[in-house]
Amino acid sequence: MSSTFGTTFRISTFGESHGVGLGAVVDGCPAGLELSAADLQSQLDRRRPGSNPLGTPRDEADAIQILSGVDQGLTLGTPIALAVLNSDQRPGDYAGMADAPRPSHADYTYRAKYGHSASSGGGRASARETLARVAAAGIAEKLLGQWYGTEIVAWVSSVGAINAPDLVGSGLTRSAVDGSDIRCPDAETAAIMTDEVKAARSAGDSCGGVVTCEIRNVPVGLGEPVFDKAEALLAHAMLSIPATKGFEIGSGFSGVTMRGSAHNDMYEARDGGQLGTVTNRSGGVQGGITTGESIYFRVAFKPTATIASAQESVDFEGKPVTVKGAGRHDPCVLPRAIPIVESMAALVLADLALRARLSQVQQ
Amino acid sequence: MSSTFGTTFRISTFGESHGVGLGAVVDGCPAGLELSAADLQSQLDRRRPGSNPLGTPRDEADAIQILSGVDQGLTLGTPIALAVLNSDQRPGDYAGMADAPRPSHADYTYRAKYGHSASSGGGRASARETLARVAAAGIAEKLLGQWYGTEIVAWVSSVGAINAPDLVGSGLTRSAVDGSDIRCPDAETAAIMTDEVKAARSAGDSCGGVVTCEIRNVPVGLGEPVFDKAEALLAHAMLSIPATKGFEIGSGFSGVTMRGSAHNDMYEARDGGQLGTVTNRSGGVQGGITTGESIYFRVAFKPTATIASAQESVDFEGKPVTVKGAGRHDPCVLPRAIPIVESMAALVLADLALRARLSQVQQ
Amino acid sequence: MSSTFGTTFRISTFGESHGVGLGAVVDGCPAGLELSAADLQSQLDRRRPGSNPLGTPRDEADAIQILSGVDQGLTLGTPIALAVLNSDQRPGDYAGMADAPRPSHADYTYRAKYGHSASSGGGRASARETLARVAAAGIAEKLLGQWYGTEIVAWVSSVGAINAPDLVGSGLTRSAVDGSDIRCPDAETAAIMTDEVKAARSAGDSCGGVVTCEIRNVPVGLGEPVFDKAEALLAHAMLSIPATKGFEIGSGFSGVTMRGSAHNDMYEARDGGQLGTVTNRSGGVQGGITTGESIYFRVAFKPTATIASAQESVDFEGKPVTVKGAGRHDPCVLPRAIPIVESMAALVLADLALRARLSQVQQ
Amino acid sequence: MSSTFGTTFRISTFGESHGVGLGAVVDGCPAGLELSAADLQSQLDRRRPGSNPLGTPRDEADAIQILSGVDQGLTLGTPIALAVLNSDQRPGDYAGMADAPRPSHADYTYRAKYGHSASSGGGRASARETLARVAAAGIAEKLLGQWYGTEIVAWVSSVGAINAPDLVGSGLTRSAVDGSDIRCPDAETAAIMTDEVKAARSAGDSCGGVVTCEIRNVPVGLGEPVFDKAEALLAHAMLSIPATKGFEIGSGFSGVTMRGSAHNDMYEARDGGQLGTVTNRSGGVQGGITTGESIYFRVAFKPTATIASAQESVDFEGKPVTVKGAGRHDPCVLPRAIPIVESMAALVLADLALRARLSQVQQ
Repeated sequence: MSSTFGTTFRISTFGESHGVGLGAVVDGCPAGLELSAADLQSQLDRRRPGSNPLGTPRDEADAIQILSGVDQGLTLGTPIALAVLNSDQRPGDYAGMADAPRPSHADYTYRAKYGHSASSGGGRASARETLARVAAAGIAEKLLGQWYGTEIVAWVSSVGAINAPDLVGSGLTRSAVDGSDIRCPDAETAAIMTDEVKAARSAGDSCGGVVTCEIRNVPVGLGEPVFDKAEALLAHAMLSIPATKGFEIGSGFSGVTMRGSAHNDMYEARDGGQLGTVTNRSGGVQGGITTGESIYFRVAFKPTATIASAQESVDFEGKPVTVKGAGRHDPCVLPRAIPIVESMAALVLADLALRARLSQVQQ
Repeated sequence: MSSTFGTTFRISTFGESHGVGLGAVVDGCPAGLELSAADLQSQLDRRRPGSNPLGTPRDEADAIQILSGVDQGLTLGTPIALAVLNSDQRPGDYAGMADAPRPSHADYTYRAKYGHSASSGGGRASARETLARVAAAGIAEKLLGQWYGTEIVAWVSSVGAINAPDLVGSGLTRSAVDGSDIRCPDAETAAIMTDEVKAARSAGDSCGGVVTCEIRNVPVGLGEPVFDKAEALLAHAMLSIPATKGFEIGSGFSGVTMRGSAHNDMYEARDGGQLGTVTNRSGGVQGGITTGESIYFRVAFKPTATIASAQESVDFEGKPVTVKGAGRHDPCVLPRAIPIVESMAALVLADLALRARLSQVQQ
Repeated sequence: MSSTFGTTFRISTFGESHGVGLGAVVDGCPAGLELSAADLQSQLDRRRPGSNPLGTPRDEADAIQILSGVDQGLTLGTPIALAVLNSDQRPGDYAGMADAPRPSHADYTYRAKYGHSASSGGGRASARETLARVAAAGIAEKLLGQWYGTEIVAWVSSVGAINAPDLVGSGLTRSAVDGSDIRCPDAETAAIMTDEVKAARSAGDSCGGVVTCEIRNVPVGLGEPVFDKAEALLAHAMLSIPATKGFEIGSGFSGVTMRGSAHNDMYEARDGGQLGTVTNRSGGVQGGITTGESIYFRVAFKPTATIASAQESVDFEGKPVTVKGAGRHDPCVLPRAIPIVESMAALVLADLALRARLSQVQQ
Repeated sequence: MSSTFGTTFRISTFGESHGVGLGAVVDGCPAGLELSAADLQSQLDRRRPGSNPLGTPRDEADAIQILSGVDQGLTLGTPIALAVLNSDQRPGDYAGMADAPRPSHADYTYRAKYGHSASSGGGRASARETLARVAAAGIAEKLLGQWYGTEIVAWVSSVGAINAPDLVGSGLTRSAVDGSDIRCPDAETAAIMTDEVKAARSAGDSCGGVVTCEIRNVPVGLGEPVFDKAEALLAHAMLSIPATKGFEIGSGFSGVTMRGSAHNDMYEARDGGQLGTVTNRSGGVQGGITTGESIYFRVAFKPTATIASAQESVDFEGKPVTVKGAGRHDPCVLPRAIPIVESMAALVLADLALRARLSQVQQ
C-alpha cells in the first residue's frame, strides 16, 4: 500500500536498487497527450548516477521504456507503464554489511518490520527508487506545461552552513541551475559549496543542505480544503524523498517572528478581473488552495548517512562492530535531488489540477 | 475528496464554522475498544474556544456526541459517527466582509475554486473545522495507549522571536504544558511569551510561533516505505492544520549544517534483543519507519491573519478597500493548536499501527 | 473501511438500527448544486418503514437533516453531512435472540468477525442501514438530472414464481410503479403478487423476488475500462444491498443461450453525429462504458430470513434451540427495495459522471 | 483510476493487446511468502491463447517475469512487479476495422470516451488484458493456500442451452476440469458442449455460457459489512471480466421462488466450538461475511461478439458498412475464462483476508 502516490493522477512505483528493474504505472493520465520516451528521459538524465562529478561513480544509462498506454504518440487514457532495467548491479559491494545495520539507514527498521530484507543495496530504501518517480513525473510536467505553461525550477540553496542569496522570484531556469555541478545558480556560492563537498569527501565524510523550489504559472484554485491542502500534499511529497528532514513553504519557520500586520499579503487587482497579492509570504497558497502567485518552498536534506570513515556501532545481534561505508554513494545528495524535488512537485500539482475539474457543477 | 484522512484508520470530517454542526465519521476502528464520549471530551476541552484567556472569547460547550459504532461501552468495528452542534453562531459578525477577501485568508481562493462560498465565518477554512479532527483523534489516542502506552505531548516552544529552551527528552506531561495559558512548560519563557501575545493584542496585531511535539513509547516498525513514510504522513498531517507553514523532524533544518559523521545515530543493544540508537537526530524514524526511539518534530504557525488593525487591500471587484478584522479571533493560535497537533499525530500513528498488521505473512 | 462507497462522488455511512441515529457524509459533490432537505425526503419516504401496508409496522418519520455542506440553498463543494435520528427504538423486541444466531442472518458472522456485536436489531446488518444510502443518493440523482435529465426507475418484476411481463423500454414512471403497494406496475400481476405476500405472511413465512431497474438518458462514455466497468460497479452496488443474491445486465443469464450473430447489437446513425444500437442486448454498456442507450438490469432478492414460524437451529454454544422471528420485519422486502436499488444506481452513475471529466486532456 | 483492484492486497494492471507488453504491480503482499515465477506460470498457461483447441490460434508463450519485490525466493513486502512481453503482435489483422466500430465491442465507447483509441486489437478492452490479473492472482492464491488451504475451482457449467448437472459440493479438482478441452468436468455434457462450439465455429458464429466457481476451505469472518460485502466484491470482480453479463451466489435467481422457511440455512454445531449450516443456500456468506461454508457462484458470459459472418452495421461516420470478424478470436471464451474467474475470486479473498486482520483490537 505504500508505493502509490496521488488520487486522480496516480503512480504506483516498484523496484529494488539491485533487482531486475524499476518502474511505475501511471493511472489517471488523460487521453490525448503527446508523449514519447524522450519527454521523460531528460529529467532522468539529470538524476542519473554518474551524471555529476560530485556524485557516485555508479554509471547507469537509465533508459526509460514505455510499455503501455501510448499509441501513435498519444496517451490512450489507459495506464502508462514505465520501466528501466538495472544494468550496473554490484550486490557484492554490500556483502560485508549484511550482519550490521548501517547507522542512520533503514536496514534495522526494514528488518524489524518485514522479518527479512533485500540482500543488498537498500532495496526500496535506496535512493535509486526515486528514478521511477522522476520518470512518471515527466508526464505530469508535460500536462502542466500544456495546460498552464507551468515551470518548476529547483536549486541548491544551502550546503552545510553555506547559504546562497535568496533567488526566489528571479526567474531562474533549469539550465542556469545546471550551470554548476553543485546546481547552485549563484556562481560564487557554487564555488564555495563545491569546495565544501570535496572537503567532506576527502575527510571520508558527507554533507547536507537545502533545496529551494519555485513553481511559476500556477492557476488559482488548485488544492483541496482541510486534509489535502496543496501545501500538505507538497510536504507529504517532499518528506517522502529519502534523507529529507524538513519542509517549509512561503515565509516558513522564519515567518513566525513576524507580526500579522507585517506578514499578511494584501490583495491588488490584476488583468482579467483576477486578484493578486502585493507580497507573497504565503508562498502561493491560502487555505490550502493556490492563489495564482508562484509557489515556493524549501526542503532540508540531512548529510548522507553512508560515509567512508569508520563508525562504532553494533550488529543485528547487538555486538559491537565497526561499520564503514562501501558501495557507491554521494558525499552530498543535493545536486541529484534537484530533479527529484521538481518531480514530486509536478506529481502533486497534476493530481490537484485533475481534482480541480471536479469542484463545480458547471465546468 | 478532500475531507478524508487515513488509509486503514480513516476519518471523514464535515461541518462549517457557522453551520448546524461539525463532526466526523471514523471508519476502521477495530471492535472491542472501550469507548465513551468522556474519552473524547478532554482534548476537545483543551481546544475549546473560550478555554484560554489568551484566545477568542467565542464560547462553545463543544459537547461531543457519539451517534453510532459503540454499544454497551465497546466499539463495534462499524463506523463511529461523532457530532458537535454549533451553539454560538454569529454570522452577523462577518456581514461587512462579504465583498472583500480578507488578506491571507482563504476567502479569495475558495470563491475562485467553488464559484461561491460559505456566507460567514470561513466555512471549512475556519479553524473551527479542527474540532472534528480532535474528536476523532481521541479514539486513535485510546488505541495507541492501549496497544503501546504511547504518549503524545506538544507544547509551545516559540512565540514570535521568543524561544523556550529545548525540552525534548525531558519527560513533559500535558498537565505541565497546561500549567501556563500560553502552554509553554518553561515558566520563565511562558511569562515573556504571554507578554508578547498581550502586546500584540493591544496593538491590534497578532503573532505566530512554533509547536514542538514529542511522541514516546512508539514501537519499531510503523511507517511504510517510499510514499507513506511516517515522517511524510506527519508532515502531511501538520501542514493540513490551518496557519501552518513548516514542519521539521529530528535535526530538521539545523541538521543540514552537520557532517554525516556527526549526524549519524549509532546503534546500541537494548533489552529484549532489540536495538536502540545512542543519539536520536533522526527523530525516531529511519527510511520512513519508526525505530522505537521517541519521535519529535516542530511545526511553524504563521501569525494570525485576522487582526484588529486596518489594512489596505481590494475587494472582489478589485476596488481599493480598508479591511479590518471582525468576528472573534485569537491574537495567537499557538496555545489552542497544541491538542490539534497532538491529534493529527495520533491519527497518523493509529493508521500506521493498523497498516503494520499487514506487513508479514506470519502475524 | 467498509462503509465508504464511490471514488469521486463518495459516501461514508454510519449508524446502527437501534442506535442514536444514522446518516452519511457525502464528499465530492461539486459546488453550486441547488439542494434542500426536501430534495432528499421523497425517496426516504418511499423507503420508510410503515409506508407500505405489505411491510413492517415499524413507524419512523425518518426526517432527514442536512448538517453541513449547503449554504443559502447551494452546495459548497465541502462535505454534506446527513443525519436521521432513530425515534422508534425497541431493543426489547430482540431480547430473546441474544443467545442464538438467527438463521440466514448475520448474527453469527458478525460475532465471529468482531468478537461481539450490537446488542439488538442487527446493527449495521439491519436493512435500516440503507436509509443513509437513500438519503445520500438523492444528491446524486439531482446531479444526474441536472446534467443529463437522467431517469432511474425500478419496479418489482417477480415475487416468488410470479413474473410480470417485460416492461423494459415502456417508459415507466415512479408514480406508475407506486400505483400498487407491491410496486409492480402491471396491475394484474400486482394483484397476484399481493395475494402471494399475504399468503406468506399468514403462513408465518416470507417470499423473495426480482427487481428490474431501467436508467434512461445516460450519456455515452461513463464507466472505466478494466476493473471499474459500469456494470461491475452496478453489480457491486446491488450485491451490497442486504438480501440480494444475483445481478444481471442486458440479456443476462438468458443471453447465454443465444449465438453471437443473434446477440450482437448493430450500430445505426443517430442525430448529432452519434451512433446508437438497433437492439440493446448489452443493456447500455460495451466494454464497461455506457453506449448512450438505456441501462437495464435485474436484481434477485432472497425471501426474508426472519419469519414468524418456529425453526430448529442451535445457539451460539451449539445447543439445540427453537428460533422464532420477533421484532418488526417485512414478509417481502421487495417493495421497499425499490428506492434502494434506484439509489445505489444513482450513486454509481454520479461517481462515473465525475470520473468521466478526467478522461481527456482537452475538456 | 480504472486499473487498480483491491484495498489492502491491491493490483494495478497495464498493457494493451498489441503494445509492448502487459503486467501488474501488486502492492500489499506481505513479506515472507515463498514465491517464484513458476508459481504464477501454471494459471497463465491455462489461460494462454493456443492452449485450447477450441480457442484462438494466437500463440503466445506468455512467460511471466518478476521484476521486483522478491529476493532470495521470498517476498519483501514491497511491490511485486510482473510483466509479460507481447511476442505475437499482428496489428495488420485489424487494419480494415479502423473505420467501423465492431458490434458489441468497445470500439465505439472507447472512442467516445477518450477521443481516440488503440490502433489495433482492442487495446485495454481486449481479453488479453486479463493475463495481468491471472499473473497477479497467482500470488493471492499462494497466500490463501498457505493460510487456510483454500481451494478455488471453476468449470464450464453451461454452453448455450446445454447445462451440466449440478457439481457444487462434489469436490471437483482443476485437473478434473482440465480433463476436457471445454473444461466441463462431466464427460457426457462436455462432449455435447464441444459439438455445439464446433457447430458455431463452422457457422461463422459463436456461443456463450455459464461458469460455476466453488471455493472451499474459507475461514469464517472474511468480508466487510455494508458496501464491501464478500458477495459484492465478488460480483464486482466477475462483472469486470470482459463479456460477462450476470452473477449469482448461492441460491441466486432461482432462490427467489422459495419461501423463507425453505430457504433459510439452519445452524448446527461443528468441531472446535464453531457453528456450521445444515444447508448452504446462502453460498457461504451471511450479511456479507463468510460463514466458513464453501462459497459458490455462477457467472454468465455472452456469446463472443467477434464472429466470422458478415454483419450489417455502420461506420464511425454513420454510413452503412458490412462488418466481418478478422483477427484471432475464440468462438467460445468459456474454457479460457476458467482461470480468470478463479483468479478474480482469489484477488477478492486475499484482499478480504488481509482486511480481516484489522477487525478487532485484540489480534
